[in-house]
Amino acid sequence: MVDLPEWVWEFHGHHCLVMPMGYRMGLIGLRELGMEKVKDHGAFALPEIGVGHPQTCVADGIQAATGCTYGKMMMESTNFGKIAYTLYEPSKGAVRVAARAEFLGELRKFAFFDFRMKGVKPSEIPLDVTQPAIEFVLSVPEEKAFKIEKLGNFGFSRAKGSFVKDVCDNCGEVVFERYLRIKDGRTLCLPCSAYDRE
Amino acid sequence: MVDLPEWVWEFHGHHCLVMPMGYRMGLIGLRELGMEKVKDHGAFALPEIGVGHPQTCVADGIQAATGCTYGKMMMESTNFGKIAYTLYEPSKGAVRVAARAEFLGELRKFAFFDFRMKGVKPSEIPLDVTQPAIEFVLSVPEEKAFKIEKLGNFGFSRAKGSFVKDVCDNCGEVVFERYLRIKDGRTLCLPCSAYDRE
Repeated sequence: MVDLPEWVWEFHGHHCLVMPMGYRMGLIGLRELGMEKVKDHGAFALPEIGVGHPQTCVADGIQAATGCTYGKMMMESTNFGKIAYTLYEPSKGAVRVAARAEFLGELRKFAFFDFRMKGVKPSEIPLDVTQPAIEFVLSVPEEKAFKIEKLGNFGFSRAKGSFVKDVCDNCGEVVFERYLRIKDGRTLCLPCSAYDRE
Repeated sequence: MVDLPEWVWEFHGHHCLVMPMGYRMGLIGLRELGMEKVKDHGAFALPEIGVGHPQTCVADGIQAATGCTYGKMMMESTNFGKIAYTLYEPSKGAVRVAARAEFLGELRKFAFFDFRMKGVKPSEIPLDVTQPAIEFVLSVPEEKAFKIEKLGNFGFSRAKGSFVKDVCDNCGEVVFERYLRIKDGRTLCLPCSAYDRE
């Protein structure tokens, strides 16, 4: 069974079976690219989750396992509505890990989902209901659960960073240069310029 | 000094002074709305960070403190290039917490930034260089560091969720219904339909 450190639950906020799925997917990606969890920057985890559907919790497991966090600007979803992600490190290449349809279907046998379909919050589902599902997800043979493929010629990048910043002439708040706008000769942030609402 | 649990460092991946800033901003938001860290769903943390600038690490501190994680679809950036965020819970209202310009300017005195400007990765900066800056951020009087304002009539919502899913007729992967597309009579995911690249 894959070991999932206690702090990852603490981060995620509740016990469910989807976050651990993402944690495994994160570890698989790292192994396939020959990487360790990224302490700083330089890699990207791109989950294919979208909005208005469940199981997006995979992305928290992926953040925790890979170190590609949203705050470090290393995670961005592709909005495909799928339980899959691509891990990319420019010098090591890219690998896509997707949950298999049969595996996702098999999860339905766990009572956890009966509670969820009835609208019970994950933190309010008894742990003895959730635990067997978590153990299944963390111990099911990898090839049964996940499709793993290396991607050739994959590319993803962020804008080149700059430390330069200034204050908005109206609100006095600090704004990084790229987001400053000019209006009637004044240097403004996006909300004060109202350009973002025009 | 605000207590920052060890697991939050583990999650973030390195020691820096910006993640703790976000952690404090997260705690302030919770207190102002009379909330505890959100275990499940129902609230949103909307950081104003953008791309191509430093200090986005605030968002990881905000995720950790509030429980509004990216994976639970409770975090989305507004792309304003600012070190600020809004915490919103429909039944409790919204509060915006922004780092003050003077406070951000004052941080420049710490040697941590000299290393960063030279391109040294946060995890490679000696901890005795980083630690004084972290302690400053976690202990500076709140009113000196942060501007806090309740927002009236604030609104933010996500698409109503659905558990319904199907498999793509081409790749056989599971897709949540909202993201299925029809092409030549077949039901396809976005990449297989290629609609996302047309």
